[in-house]
Amino acid sequence: MNVYEKSLKLHEEKKGKIEINSKVQVTNKEELSLAYSPGVAEPCRKIVEDEKNIYKYTSKGNMVAVITDGSAVLGLGNIGPKAALPVMEGKSILFKNFANVDSFPLCLDTQDTNEIINICKNLAPSLGGINLEDISAPRCVEIERRLKEELDIPVFHDDQHGTAIIVTAALLNACKLTKKDPKELKVVVSGAGAAGSSIVRMIHNYGVGDIISVDIDGIINSKRENLDFLQKEILVITNKNDVEGNLADAMKNADVFVGVSAGNIVSKEMIESMNDNPFVFAMANPEPEITPEKAREAGARIIGTGRSDYPNQINNVLAFPGIFRGALDIGAMQINEEMKLAAAYAIAGVIDENELREDYIVPSPFDERVVNAVAEAVAKKAIETDIVRK
Amino acid sequence: MNVYEKSLKLHEEKKGKIEINSKVQVTNKEELSLAYSPGVAEPCRKIVEDEKNIYKYTSKGNMVAVITDGSAVLGLGNIGPKAALPVMEGKSILFKNFANVDSFPLCLDTQDTNEIINICKNLAPSLGGINLEDISAPRCVEIERRLKEELDIPVFHDDQHGTAIIVTAALLNACKLTKKDPKELKVVVSGAGAAGSSIVRMIHNYGVGDIISVDIDGIINSKRENLDFLQKEILVITNKNDVEGNLADAMKNADVFVGVSAGNIVSKEMIESMNDNPFVFAMANPEPEITPEKAREAGARIIGTGRSDYPNQINNVLAFPGIFRGALDIGAMQINEEMKLAAAYAIAGVIDENELREDYIVPSPFDERVVNAVAEAVAKKAIETDIVRK
Repeated sequence: MNVYEKSLKLHEEKKGKIEINSKVQVTNKEELSLAYSPGVAEPCRKIVEDEKNIYKYTSKGNMVAVITDGSAVLGLGNIGPKAALPVMEGKSILFKNFANVDSFPLCLDTQDTNEIINICKNLAPSLGGINLEDISAPRCVEIERRLKEELDIPVFHDDQHGTAIIVTAALLNACKLTKKDPKELKVVVSGAGAAGSSIVRMIHNYGVGDIISVDIDGIINSKRENLDFLQKEILVITNKNDVEGNLADAMKNADVFVGVSAGNIVSKEMIESMNDNPFVFAMANPEPEITPEKAREAGARIIGTGRSDYPNQINNVLAFPGIFRGALDIGAMQINEEMKLAAAYAIAGVIDENELREDYIVPSPFDERVVNAVAEAVAKKAIETDIVRK
Repeated sequence: MNVYEKSLKLHEEKKGKIEINSKVQVTNKEELSLAYSPGVAEPCRKIVEDEKNIYKYTSKGNMVAVITDGSAVLGLGNIGPKAALPVMEGKSILFKNFANVDSFPLCLDTQDTNEIINICKNLAPSLGGINLEDISAPRCVEIERRLKEELDIPVFHDDQHGTAIIVTAALLNACKLTKKDPKELKVVVSGAGAAGSSIVRMIHNYGVGDIISVDIDGIINSKRENLDFLQKEILVITNKNDVEGNLADAMKNADVFVGVSAGNIVSKEMIESMNDNPFVFAMANPEPEITPEKAREAGARIIGTGRSDYPNQINNVLAFPGIFRGALDIGAMQINEEMKLAAAYAIAGVIDENELREDYIVPSPFDERVVNAVAEAVAKKAIETDIVRK
């Protein structure tokens, strides 16, 4: 059986991947009177007195909803909320398995931006956090931003920021290993949607000196007339010389290629046109922008992909469990840019400087040190940036 | 420590009562590739092919959301969604402990009827059923009805129907024990809100010949000008002779008193004015309409309350776990009146005829036979009434 057949069998045998358990026994009158009526009135009254007590007496503080509208699921596209459920349950169990975060999926039967925002806002009272998932761009960005503004619980859209955090960690270790200064780097980011724009923002915050963002119509520049609001934002921090051209033009004399775009769009010649010993992070799935074999032949020095069958896998599971763990533990009301960058540093830092190798700049998703390192760094940064619940 | 102090301690120690667990391990690459990407794409594709496959490959079929707006919580009133959470978590763990139904609470930050309906509809794709809870009347009735019409998953408002089902079961066994014919009974129902109106409807369907519904303004009759839509509905099946008067007037020559109203509103004299050997189900909480002691002194033969410290406790936990268990197991798309009545018969039937006593007409909430009896009866009736998913 291949991985798909095996997965189908697993899903059928288990009838889904999550279950909800009771932390307290209810086997007799006494237990019933404590867990439910009449005793339960007392924690209710305490929350009426001070609503912050909800974190003391309920499961809210460790409860994250994974919310989607099914509009951009894996590589499957707009398959709708029902077909998205296996992925959302998967995300929920990753939260649990990697960071002991309680999480359940909610697949919404609407793809209207305002309605999704309204529903999420109205769901917030019993949630400790919201993980938005597989919502198409650029709607996902608007949804996340408005929820961040309006809610006092962490809201995080993993498709935007997850890859950005890991690729920043990879870039950080690649610079460390090769003694390069990010300020001196020219980085080409292929893909200017939700993930691409978050990558641009994050590596800019990390300190990369020159970033060129490219989408299917070429380099993002001021003469382009079809830019969406995300791309207009990107333009402000990319393409300093406002150049025009296609991906091949962008890659000439670049030091780093970052791809969150489409399979097989980068040729060996394009890699050869880069500066010597470039870094290539080709994360399109399942086919990368260029295979690691070809990239290597064309001179790439450090190579990462989204795949688990090559070294340096850029896997979101390195970030989101620890980020929520840290945010929930410290009572952060938001996951801000500083916390995301702190997560990238923490992930990179898991690998000791003397352990770093060209094929080991990103820790394994199963390296148990990662989640704690990320959680601690995120919690610390939440305090420093003063967004912790008082 | 009293029950409130003990309960508070329990809630603080456990930090809430529910947790979400993973049914599959994710400890290595292989397991990750089956539970999540890339393998998970396969169950997604199967659901795209036929959306009913969602019940085969996901947890939807056993997943019930307990949804409230916090507008009518226990006896605490409109305490809002946050303070309602301990109760909703309690309900969720009762689902789990009594019927192995996976359940999580959603406390909504809106009390707008249309908004609540809209949110519930949009949450339906990943849910196997919805248990509405502690929403004030008569909004709760409209919300439940519209959701029943528009959704293909069971929607059940326990505050309306739970008590109605158990009190019907109690009445059934009381008639069996005393060889009374429901057609010959005059039953007074005190309280004409959500629970009261559901009781009226259910005992009417059971076959009670004469029902008088009374609210704070007296007997529901055609001259009353302040009736809400629920009370207008009730009027059609109650008060055959269209009499006027107060609760004391209604109770004269009645055979059964059913109270879902307020504590201490029934006097011994009112019981004495009833026909001989009446049944008194006084379910106001924590103070019943009349205490069992006083009712007994005034001649009541069979007495039930909502309290666990008296015999014949009318406790909703006898009904809702088995009802959802049966509905989910059989793939019912609704919980209809016939299924509710079948649940009442099943609960009553748990006690053998020769075991019936005046102080044992309702089984214990911890009688393990109840949930299966209810589930089987409900599933059978769902098939008979043809509302099972094809």
